[in-house]
Amino acid sequence: MARIWNFSAGPATLPVSALERAQKEMLDWAGTGMSIMETSHRSKEYDQVHNEAADSFRQLLKLDDDFTVLFLQGGASQQFAVLPMNFLPAGGSADYVNTGVWSKKALAEAKVLGNAREAGTAGPDFTSVVRKDGLDLDPNAAYVHFTSNNTIKGTQYYEIPDCGSTPLVCDMSSDFLWQPFDANRFHMIYAGAQKNIGPAGVTVVLLRKSWLEKANQDIPTIFKYGIHAENNSLYNTPPTFAIYIVRNVLDWVKAEGGLEAMERRNREKGDLLYSAIEAHGDFYRCPVEKGSRSFMNVVFRLPTEELEAKFVAEAKAAGLSGLKGHRSVGGCRASIYNAMEKAGVQALVDFMEGFAKTNG
Amino acid sequence: MARIWNFSAGPATLPVSALERAQKEMLDWAGTGMSIMETSHRSKEYDQVHNEAADSFRQLLKLDDDFTVLFLQGGASQQFAVLPMNFLPAGGSADYVNTGVWSKKALAEAKVLGNAREAGTAGPDFTSVVRKDGLDLDPNAAYVHFTSNNTIKGTQYYEIPDCGSTPLVCDMSSDFLWQPFDANRFHMIYAGAQKNIGPAGVTVVLLRKSWLEKANQDIPTIFKYGIHAENNSLYNTPPTFAIYIVRNVLDWVKAEGGLEAMERRNREKGDLLYSAIEAHGDFYRCPVEKGSRSFMNVVFRLPTEELEAKFVAEAKAAGLSGLKGHRSVGGCRASIYNAMEKAGVQALVDFMEGFAKTNG
Repeated sequence: MARIWNFSAGPATLPVSALERAQKEMLDWAGTGMSIMETSHRSKEYDQVHNEAADSFRQLLKLDDDFTVLFLQGGASQQFAVLPMNFLPAGGSADYVNTGVWSKKALAEAKVLGNAREAGTAGPDFTSVVRKDGLDLDPNAAYVHFTSNNTIKGTQYYEIPDCGSTPLVCDMSSDFLWQPFDANRFHMIYAGAQKNIGPAGVTVVLLRKSWLEKANQDIPTIFKYGIHAENNSLYNTPPTFAIYIVRNVLDWVKAEGGLEAMERRNREKGDLLYSAIEAHGDFYRCPVEKGSRSFMNVVFRLPTEELEAKFVAEAKAAGLSGLKGHRSVGGCRASIYNAMEKAGVQALVDFMEGFAKTNG
Repeated sequence: MARIWNFSAGPATLPVSALERAQKEMLDWAGTGMSIMETSHRSKEYDQVHNEAADSFRQLLKLDDDFTVLFLQGGASQQFAVLPMNFLPAGGSADYVNTGVWSKKALAEAKVLGNAREAGTAGPDFTSVVRKDGLDLDPNAAYVHFTSNNTIKGTQYYEIPDCGSTPLVCDMSSDFLWQPFDANRFHMIYAGAQKNIGPAGVTVVLLRKSWLEKANQDIPTIFKYGIHAENNSLYNTPPTFAIYIVRNVLDWVKAEGGLEAMERRNREKGDLLYSAIEAHGDFYRCPVEKGSRSFMNVVFRLPTEELEAKFVAEAKAAGLSGLKGHRSVGGCRASIYNAMEKAGVQALVDFMEGFAKTNG
């Protein structure tokens, strides 16, 4: 087996133990004589996996009893529409904090469905998050929506600002579970799995059941959060294999020591990489303001685009994959989610030092 | 490895070759040093798998150039809503042929969004399909919707009736690719993968691009078929691993000899099982009319519910799993999709004969 270091922004690297478990059980899992992919979602065997995954979120985040844990489909992009379908009331309005492209997409979908407004922006450059003093909140908003981490620009909230009593909703797709945090402050948290917690194809939604009383009822059944909550995400066939992998990933998180261990690991990796960039400040440059620099997606530039292309190609040849920046902004980007080992970041830093020496 | 015979209605048994391939490549596929689950959906390596899967549908069904092949999420249940969101015009109406619970759910979602009517019904018993003379079609309908196979009642259309020039839409989730058929008659075909073509978590939609000119534009972007068509199902992150498994399953279909081979295989299995039921007509009974009996889901009753429970339990102990009928109707059901081997059906028939002898 020749594994490389995979710095892709998502789908992204997964814990080897989660994959090995899936490999071992692929044709016969838990003594059932079949793959979990072939197992009925109505069986008691599958039910156990499904509930283990949900319970792990509850445990890791110390969720209070008002929360339901849903496994849905369609990625965060689908939640951009399903959230306002459920919680943007006729005649009401919702606030969206604009920290970049994903926030903008969420706002645009809400505007198709009702009234929504930009409640602060990090534009035009999006090289920082929007802090409390940059927020322009409507006290009557149905909810206020944040995006915790911007994969493209490499910015991250270390803590979501206080917004008073307005229900707080957050898209945490790209940094969910990167550190301990007070999930009970939120009315809803959602995350496409394919960055920090599993494969593409499942979206985790943590939602206050008490909020469901306010949900719109004149929408298709399949898009009602309430229906999925009542049916423990088994109203229709869920993406069983993707949920199984999420279960495996969460078991790995717990075995590593939980969210405290994730934070320690992530801060070590981020500090190592940002320090290397600073140490070669004549060659590498991070355009993101200190205090908003993401511990998940580290973006950096080289002196020229030619050198950036050369860097990405030579890194790939050296077993360091996925370092090209998002096509909309160029440059370089190292995504170092929970599952990236410190040894991978060390290998990248070593490569960067050599590359700067040769090409600087 | 101790594989059992899995007669589950879905998620269902898959070709062993498709699973073995996934097992072998789980930690390092195609020499990339990573799992396909960890691979960027924007990479050329993933792109090849994605396009191979789409091209296999084109080849197997001889689709004309007007068709786009989409990989979406949310199962057929989501298409129940997304179809009318796109193609039920304001002030217009759509026709739904009612062959049972899935048809009813599709109709109910359409009614949330606009005008839709029942254009014929197989109720109250749903022990047959609705034939041409039972249809009550609106010549001005935006489309007419069929469900080709009813997993719960065990009925199946061997051919969808002619409906003149009204755009024909069909939910083929539970019998897609079971035999060759003229896909070019349809404006849209959709299928959740987890019965005949792959794992839960991906929905295949075959759609006439020329129909997109009539699509509603005032809906959220994520639900626009046109956006997914323009972006080759890469507008947002697709369920990459599920699509990879579909690719593997379609490679197996082609290696077996294509849809002609599937039909031969499926008719042999169905004939074998229905003959066994008929041969023990004093003990087993199929409530479905001849001419509507499904080659995918064979439902049958025993003299008492007690015997049915005993049958299901003893069959499971004998390595024949998933034979309990749907919870809404009771009885027994053997789902024998494409991937079920003839040897599995033979083992079931042998068991049935022994059980009838002992308990009859």
